[in-house]
Amino acid sequence: MKPRIYNFSAGPAILPEEVLLEAKESLYAYGETGIGILEMSHRSTPYESIVNEAIANMKKILGIGDDFEVLFLQGGASLQFHMLPLNLAKEKTTDYICTGAWSEKAIVEAKRLGVVHEIASSKDKNYSYIPKISANQVHTDSAYLHFTSNNTIFGTQFKEEPPANGIPLVCDASSDFLSRPLPMDKYSLIYAGAQKNIGPAGVVVVVMRKELLKRSDANLTPMLSYSVHAKEKSLYNTPPAFSIYVVGLVLKWILKLGGLSAMQKINEDKADILYKHIDQSKIFRGTVEKSARSLMNVPFRLPSEEMEEKFIKESSKVGFSGLKGHRSVGGMRASIYNAFPKKGVEDLVRFMQEFESKNA
Amino acid sequence: MKPRIYNFSAGPAILPEEVLLEAKESLYAYGETGIGILEMSHRSTPYESIVNEAIANMKKILGIGDDFEVLFLQGGASLQFHMLPLNLAKEKTTDYICTGAWSEKAIVEAKRLGVVHEIASSKDKNYSYIPKISANQVHTDSAYLHFTSNNTIFGTQFKEEPPANGIPLVCDASSDFLSRPLPMDKYSLIYAGAQKNIGPAGVVVVVMRKELLKRSDANLTPMLSYSVHAKEKSLYNTPPAFSIYVVGLVLKWILKLGGLSAMQKINEDKADILYKHIDQSKIFRGTVEKSARSLMNVPFRLPSEEMEEKFIKESSKVGFSGLKGHRSVGGMRASIYNAFPKKGVEDLVRFMQEFESKNA
Repeated sequence: MKPRIYNFSAGPAILPEEVLLEAKESLYAYGETGIGILEMSHRSTPYESIVNEAIANMKKILGIGDDFEVLFLQGGASLQFHMLPLNLAKEKTTDYICTGAWSEKAIVEAKRLGVVHEIASSKDKNYSYIPKISANQVHTDSAYLHFTSNNTIFGTQFKEEPPANGIPLVCDASSDFLSRPLPMDKYSLIYAGAQKNIGPAGVVVVVMRKELLKRSDANLTPMLSYSVHAKEKSLYNTPPAFSIYVVGLVLKWILKLGGLSAMQKINEDKADILYKHIDQSKIFRGTVEKSARSLMNVPFRLPSEEMEEKFIKESSKVGFSGLKGHRSVGGMRASIYNAFPKKGVEDLVRFMQEFESKNA
Repeated sequence: MKPRIYNFSAGPAILPEEVLLEAKESLYAYGETGIGILEMSHRSTPYESIVNEAIANMKKILGIGDDFEVLFLQGGASLQFHMLPLNLAKEKTTDYICTGAWSEKAIVEAKRLGVVHEIASSKDKNYSYIPKISANQVHTDSAYLHFTSNNTIFGTQFKEEPPANGIPLVCDASSDFLSRPLPMDKYSLIYAGAQKNIGPAGVVVVVMRKELLKRSDANLTPMLSYSVHAKEKSLYNTPPAFSIYVVGLVLKWILKLGGLSAMQKINEDKADILYKHIDQSKIFRGTVEKSARSLMNVPFRLPSEEMEEKFIKESSKVGFSGLKGHRSVGGMRASIYNAFPKKGVEDLVRFMQEFESKNA
């Protein structure tokens, strides 16, 4: 077996080793059940414990109580782009902030169902910054204000929540969920595809205030209704059981590390090492306004595309995978999510130093 | 570690041991990639090979060519109940045959979107038989005729396809897909949640004729459009990668056994052992008309509920799990899907014999 390499993939992405090792054992035999985790009825006691524990740990990590629901759904953030306005907007307009490709997609889907106010956008500078929002830009008669907390492709991240001017604040946090503490009093709904920071692909987490459930129309098809999924405790139909199980393991891992404050410190530490190196380099440069830099996805470039190609090729040879940037930014991108080890960032910086000294 | 028990769960259900053992290894390290299968980008070459191979093997097993699409989607059969009429019916009526709880659910969802002709039902006898359909019952102006090939709860199974009278034949085959050869020339679309015969929960397979894709309205939200998923080769968004990977392993296992004819022989053999024993018993009895008996789910009862409770309790002590029947039928149910071993059926029969001799 080849040794594990440094996986900088933007998602599905690296998971904590201890999570993988535990999941591995459960695949053939889950605890003392005599069957594997994939083979277990979702109506069985052991499986219900898995889901209930995951919900309880999610609430503990976020510091939320019974006024919130935690749902585990299918279809990823992409289906949430549709479910969100379908359930919450009804006849109302919606407000969206556009900070990248994923915001754009969310807006397209909301527009299918009603009127969208795009109250701010950073498209003018290829999404390299986070627009400053003032409360009076938000329409008080809109159903909600939507923003994308972290932009996987462009490597920007909101450092604080935009002011929602009294309407519900909704966030697509797919690529930085549980990477830092969240002031949950500001939020009405957060959704996150699991495959970046909190688990494997196949499940999307929705954390929402219960008071919003009454907005779901009773005639919605049940699979697209937040209200049905909440009532059935995410067991309306067969859930993506294994993905939820792995998310549960990741939640335990976060708790063991010390929760979201500890997680943030670890992430700041890692990102700091990389950004500092980029800033002092004579050949590497960041692509994002400093105040908007993401702790999760770090895009950077070299003076020429030829040199970038060389960098990616050579880095891949020494065991760095997934460093090629998204085509809309070019260059390189290091995704250093929760589970990415500090040593991997240090080794990358060392490699960048060597590359610079050879190619300066 | 406790030894593996006999898992008669109706779903998620037993998987082939060799599939579990291979998946287990891939969890920490997939081949020579240096990363685990859960951590792999869905845009990477190794992952694309996994999906492409699964599609090719599905086509090989079903004996279909380029006139069919194989899609791997999320949301299970439950979301298909909605997507199917949403994509295929438009302004048209639809025809449905109702043979159990899952047909009922499919009909409820189709009715949200248009007029449904329920052309036949076996509800009058608690779904214990399969109604005989003649072609002239089918409305030639309907968008399609829908049936549920196997009824997990009631233990009935269509022995041949109902005549579709020239309109597209659509089948929910969730609980018997790939358990026997299918005359694909008769079918226009088959969907199946993976978690019974072909894999873990989290993915639903849709096998459909390409000519039906043009029915999808271009304004549908992309996640609910067959046409979008077909165009993007099931990679419109991050797919449930691990579930698809395991389905791929199951497909290879089916091919190794000799394909669907071999699978059918194995399944007939197992079911025969159990039904024969039930038929000769003085205390056990089947609940389903003989001609409609499912090879997958075998419900059976004892003379009293007390005796049934005793049977389930004692069987569970000796390592038979999941034998409790669904509440709408009562008694016991043995789900003996593709991966369930013949020895498990033989051991169950032996246990039934002993139980009968002690309790006659």
